[in-house]
Amino acid sequence: MVNNIQKVGFIGLGKMGNPIAKNILNSGFDLTVHNRTPGKMKSLLDAGANGATSPREAARGVDVVITCLMDDQTELDSTLGEDGLLAGLEPGGIHIGTATISPSCAATLAEIHRTNGSHYVAAPLFGRPDAAAAGTLLTYVAGDEKVIKACKNLFEAYSRSHIYMGDDPKKVNSIKLTMNFILVCLIELFSQTYTFAEKSGIEPEFTQELIMTVLQHPVLKEYATRLRLQEFEPAAFKLSAGYKDVELMLQASSDVRAPLIFASAIREKFLTALANGMAEKDWSAIYEIARTNAGLT
Amino acid sequence: MVNNIQKVGFIGLGKMGNPIAKNILNSGFDLTVHNRTPGKMKSLLDAGANGATSPREAARGVDVVITCLMDDQTELDSTLGEDGLLAGLEPGGIHIGTATISPSCAATLAEIHRTNGSHYVAAPLFGRPDAAAAGTLLTYVAGDEKVIKACKNLFEAYSRSHIYMGDDPKKVNSIKLTMNFILVCLIELFSQTYTFAEKSGIEPEFTQELIMTVLQHPVLKEYATRLRLQEFEPAAFKLSAGYKDVELMLQASSDVRAPLIFASAIREKFLTALANGMAEKDWSAIYEIARTNAGLT
Amino acid sequence: MVNNIQKVGFIGLGKMGNPIAKNILNSGFDLTVHNRTPGKMKSLLDAGANGATSPREAARGVDVVITCLMDDQTELDSTLGEDGLLAGLEPGGIHIGTATISPSCAATLAEIHRTNGSHYVAAPLFGRPDAAAAGTLLTYVAGDEKVIKACKNLFEAYSRSHIYMGDDPKKVNSIKLTMNFILVCLIELFSQTYTFAEKSGIEPEFTQELIMTVLQHPVLKEYATRLRLQEFEPAAFKLSAGYKDVELMLQASSDVRAPLIFASAIREKFLTALANGMAEKDWSAIYEIARTNAGLT
Amino acid sequence: MVNNIQKVGFIGLGKMGNPIAKNILNSGFDLTVHNRTPGKMKSLLDAGANGATSPREAARGVDVVITCLMDDQTELDSTLGEDGLLAGLEPGGIHIGTATISPSCAATLAEIHRTNGSHYVAAPLFGRPDAAAAGTLLTYVAGDEKVIKACKNLFEAYSRSHIYMGDDPKKVNSIKLTMNFILVCLIELFSQTYTFAEKSGIEPEFTQELIMTVLQHPVLKEYATRLRLQEFEPAAFKLSAGYKDVELMLQASSDVRAPLIFASAIREKFLTALANGMAEKDWSAIYEIARTNAGLT
Repeated sequence: MVNNIQKVGFIGLGKMGNPIAKNILNSGFDLTVHNRTPGKMKSLLDAGANGATSPREAARGVDVVITCLMDDQTELDSTLGEDGLLAGLEPGGIHIGTATISPSCAATLAEIHRTNGSHYVAAPLFGRPDAAAAGTLLTYVAGDEKVIKACKNLFEAYSRSHIYMGDDPKKVNSIKLTMNFILVCLIELFSQTYTFAEKSGIEPEFTQELIMTVLQHPVLKEYATRLRLQEFEPAAFKLSAGYKDVELMLQASSDVRAPLIFASAIREKFLTALANGMAEKDWSAIYEIARTNAGLT
Repeated sequence: MVNNIQKVGFIGLGKMGNPIAKNILNSGFDLTVHNRTPGKMKSLLDAGANGATSPREAARGVDVVITCLMDDQTELDSTLGEDGLLAGLEPGGIHIGTATISPSCAATLAEIHRTNGSHYVAAPLFGRPDAAAAGTLLTYVAGDEKVIKACKNLFEAYSRSHIYMGDDPKKVNSIKLTMNFILVCLIELFSQTYTFAEKSGIEPEFTQELIMTVLQHPVLKEYATRLRLQEFEPAAFKLSAGYKDVELMLQASSDVRAPLIFASAIREKFLTALANGMAEKDWSAIYEIARTNAGLT
Repeated sequence: MVNNIQKVGFIGLGKMGNPIAKNILNSGFDLTVHNRTPGKMKSLLDAGANGATSPREAARGVDVVITCLMDDQTELDSTLGEDGLLAGLEPGGIHIGTATISPSCAATLAEIHRTNGSHYVAAPLFGRPDAAAAGTLLTYVAGDEKVIKACKNLFEAYSRSHIYMGDDPKKVNSIKLTMNFILVCLIELFSQTYTFAEKSGIEPEFTQELIMTVLQHPVLKEYATRLRLQEFEPAAFKLSAGYKDVELMLQASSDVRAPLIFASAIREKFLTALANGMAEKDWSAIYEIARTNAGLT
Repeated sequence: MVNNIQKVGFIGLGKMGNPIAKNILNSGFDLTVHNRTPGKMKSLLDAGANGATSPREAARGVDVVITCLMDDQTELDSTLGEDGLLAGLEPGGIHIGTATISPSCAATLAEIHRTNGSHYVAAPLFGRPDAAAAGTLLTYVAGDEKVIKACKNLFEAYSRSHIYMGDDPKKVNSIKLTMNFILVCLIELFSQTYTFAEKSGIEPEFTQELIMTVLQHPVLKEYATRLRLQEFEPAAFKLSAGYKDVELMLQASSDVRAPLIFASAIREKFLTALANGMAEKDWSAIYEIARTNAGLT
């Protein structure tokens, strides 16, 4: 491992990879790129990058090789095998993985590099292609702290900020999945809300305002804190009263013929809570059901 | 109906009703209160309110009677029958219903008053007991516009603002349920998020920060707009890629033994979308599945 | 109450009611019928029944009045009010309710009759219109045992057999709902099975054979017994192995793009069981999760 | 490939593998066994089997090698690599895979053998350890028909019957998963039924009888046929009436505090059907929703 990163390999020039690689090149690094479909390399070669015909070649002689691929399988395929980056990387070399992969695959990659005498840094990307182009991505990074410090300039070349989260690469991938989980749940929540509201005669513009009002309401921080501290007594709104409202939602969803699938799932949690003596607690105490189901006490 | 509301009846002195009634009294109205459990009337009687032994008596001789009760059944019970408020209310009298009731019950109440020659105003409360005490509740109101204008001072006595939403009382109750739906979904979302994160080794303080960061992220407004306009092409993040992430969430939830019930429900929507040729659209196009299931084109 | 039932009122001549009334008439009872849409009475009047213009009139002077209506609301409407059967029924009269109604509505009707000095017998119907026509319905009955014995001939006029289930009318309606629950779950199970199988290249004829083979397999009785006795050790098939199979089903459902919604719901129960230390028990021990969620120990 | 199978290798001596291997040995085959934990080989070695230290050795010089392992990963691990069975198997050799694996893994194994010049036969087991011991397992087999015919005596050594299902190994694994899907759904259905019934005051013995009565009722064959033929008109029981019953189940489940999670999932399908104009069809027409969601027309 060198302290002055100069030579960088980059594998995967998709919607995210392309603008990131460009920012790295523009920051003055000596960049070698590889993409399975060679045509996508052209704009970077034109801009001064070197081309490589395989992950192995992209990793040969560089200080750091970055992968920006699709999933577990493509990450593993690019790393292992005859043409994999591991076959090209020198002892002490660094592999920065930016894809959204499973925490267990991140752990596997870290283990492979440890055995190999090289370093794996998990650094999933937070942001979309426009943020990648603007260099305003957020990156949580995990791995050997010294290695990550050595890569400071490189991270700064394509991220607005990078935050060190310890040495466990599983963890930052779990964080990435957690964020995407929240996001996709919100999209589905919006979907159900717009649908139910439209069938109830509420104009979509008003519904959007309603959604944004709730999302920005200070009460959400109170609830997030209450759950974190597991403080459900005294109740601000009793679980039994909350259950009544959930049943009203379902009745209304039935009346207007618009399934509210999250309300159905939540109804089960309220019923479970009521069957287990929690009627007088705050309605946010349904958190306890999620904890019990995960074996937490 | 009078244009200068002076005499007000108030039925239901619970956690919300008590502070609201107090604010009305403090604003100079001539107030008569009733509560099924008489002991809860004491503090208001001490403060100068008149006491009534039944809803009918509370409605007798007043300009407006307000109900602040538990649910459909208690609203109907207080309105109808020998001792109901309808038996006491004079022709042209006004009934303001503040409870969270079903939209269909609100329609029934409006119809009952229409037949009776009196007025029903649906005015569900947005805010919790502390907002009621501070007089900072938000109220969406629906009913006869002239009637609502006549009640302006009364609404101002207990609400920070009241917003006229037309003459359909079902609608404001649908809005109330929509807001509560969003809220309870967020609570359950927080529950699953904290649980999954904790079992993945992420500290609750960090998880809370993550949750608040996503909720306040500008991308949510973009998604809410995209859905409202039903613009799913070109994709910022393809549905097929989003599906891959949903599967990763479920795999991780399996690895750490923490069910993510919303992710399971969402998985079904993604699979349905993929089975119906939507792989290249933006992942927020799962909205189309919710619409189809509700019979919207 | 008389011991020799002769005169019978019958309210509700729909798909079920019509053939039942005909069988009662054919058995020699003196029958008076009522239907909201009078046209549906014609074939019975032609066959010798008397016509009534209201539930009250149908109940006047008879020993027993039978209702065969749609739901809670129509049962209550036909019973109560100025034109309700209660207004016509003599002291000690009997009301046999055959509709599928909520257990709580059945309890309400029983209480109303008790107060009124008459008798309510809950007797929901098991069977479809063809069984009603053939007189081969099965009836579970609950109410006063002497009253039910007095109605023996009447039950025999339209049922293959009637089984006394004690004096609680809620119970037989719960049994009816339980049977319909099993039935509708099987229909949905068939739906998912045919869909998944077809998308996996399996011919529908073969799938039907497969379904019928499993339903008639002796192992199901073993499972039903195991659950009843709550004997989950030693395991015939470990919960951890069962979970693996559930994940394989979901993976295959993903591969062929056919959501298996029951498998998703079941996956959550297995994960909950595994998170709570049940990996070594028989996979049927997921029953314990259902019990816990219902507050049973 | 030989036409007279004599020498058999057997890998995986677990609960299923052990009795199967014993039956094969008892039928006079020359058997070589391998198990990862060597201790489990003892009883077979004592009975006259040869021992092998690796899958490769177990496959060396035999006509057929059978694997009876846990999952996709163990099947692949035993097949591939330096010590895998493929390294030992002679050209034209046969690999019979009996594990419950994913259809896609079965396809992969078939492809690997095709490339290798050997044969893969998918033959998942239907039955539990007691059936394995009694030699009464049922086996669906897929692969090259001539190969399967050559193995006739071998299949008969451990199965009551083996049924040829064509040459696609994915298909028989899909059939196995379909059967297990039906089975696990029934177990979960029993769980919900017993729980709801117990909380409704119904004795478990009676509930078991009820369950068995429905499962053996001829109406189920009618429904299975109706779905297969997609004949939903005329309705025997209208979808709108069926929906009413589903709502009654949910109301009762709420009253007794026992979540009926399948009823919640089914409610969504009924609502979707009603929102799309299917009220007058037979209630079994919810099958059309499952088909639509899977992209079938």
